[in-house]
Amino acid sequence: MSGKFITFEGPEGSGKSSLVQRVFDHFTARGMRVMMTREPGGIRISEKIRDILLDNALTEMDPRTEALLFAAARRQHLSEKIIPALQAGTMILCDRFIDSSLAYQGVGRGLGIDEVYAINRFAIGEFLPDLTVFVNVRPEVGLARLFANHRTKIDRLDLETQDFHRRLYDGYLELLKRYPDRIHSINGERPLDEVARDAIALIERHL
Amino acid sequence: MSGKFITFEGPEGSGKSSLVQRVFDHFTARGMRVMMTREPGGIRISEKIRDILLDNALTEMDPRTEALLFAAARRQHLSEKIIPALQAGTMILCDRFIDSSLAYQGVGRGLGIDEVYAINRFAIGEFLPDLTVFVNVRPEVGLARLFANHRTKIDRLDLETQDFHRRLYDGYLELLKRYPDRIHSINGERPLDEVARDAIALIERHL
Repeated sequence: MSGKFITFEGPEGSGKSSLVQRVFDHFTARGMRVMMTREPGGIRISEKIRDILLDNALTEMDPRTEALLFAAARRQHLSEKIIPALQAGTMILCDRFIDSSLAYQGVGRGLGIDEVYAINRFAIGEFLPDLTVFVNVRPEVGLARLFANHRTKIDRLDLETQDFHRRLYDGYLELLKRYPDRIHSINGERPLDEVARDAIALIERHL
Repeated sequence: MSGKFITFEGPEGSGKSSLVQRVFDHFTARGMRVMMTREPGGIRISEKIRDILLDNALTEMDPRTEALLFAAARRQHLSEKIIPALQAGTMILCDRFIDSSLAYQGVGRGLGIDEVYAINRFAIGEFLPDLTVFVNVRPEVGLARLFANHRTKIDRLDLETQDFHRRLYDGYLELLKRYPDRIHSINGERPLDEVARDAIALIERHL
């Protein structure tokens, strides 16, 4: 693979999506071949799975169903879009990847990081990001931002309890300890300009 | 669990669905509480997953995506519909269950029975059918029936190559060897009356 695969992780309201756009603009302006994508989704089949996952009406969804659907969407996205682009030398900026499943379903839903990792191994094999940027925003700050931002559509996962969002955050902190070489934390509770500057510097050190 | 969980398996065109209806009518007429259901589907979320799985347009679907989607649909169907009904003492007649994944994705797609079993363990734990009726119809006979029957809607999986359907059938024969206590084969290449009589006798011996 000649391209680099960089993922962005963080709790709801961490500002990840705006950050990914900034990083994309920066590297594109430098003449690099960069692709922006997101999970769940990024491609036709995975967007259909996304519609099921984020549908507010489907409150009966079992946590294991949820974990399997995320893994299915990830597999298709990886095999159809990410791997071919990496092989063509493109830098990939992906909004959420495996760590979201480990934090949301593994810790937030209590299924266990190792169990959720196992079905993701079926989905992605040994393939992992070259670098993961964790946008560190405490859950109370992220949720306050989310609900203050009237442009944001609130989905099924946003509607979880405060306790769920606390566990999710603790899950990310656990992942930072497990994968210190791959996952790097940046303070996301600052203006976007500053967060973007740090993220770009972090990525440049890894290129 | 006070109810019995009986699954029906077989290749395309084996006449499983008509058989399940006959068996249902028989036990219902005897005053038993019986529920008929099918996979993938059987309940709201799983039917949405079914729509993705059987969509003829989605020819780009990766075999691992497919396996994960079947497991997701199975988990929801089991937790939301099958287990509560069994706890209430209902006999469940289910058109396809885990053995379809082992045969279709494990053998037909070549992912391996053990690997596909592993993600299904995540989906269903130690839960297995009390009895599985394998409707044994050779693939050339099943496919001839399928295409002769103009009422049948041909879906994405029906459109696979003959070679795929041959592997699928061999997969079922392998499962019969692996699970001789649970899976019982009946000759499905006979008139429906005879097949139904054998299936009912088989089930009655297991009640």
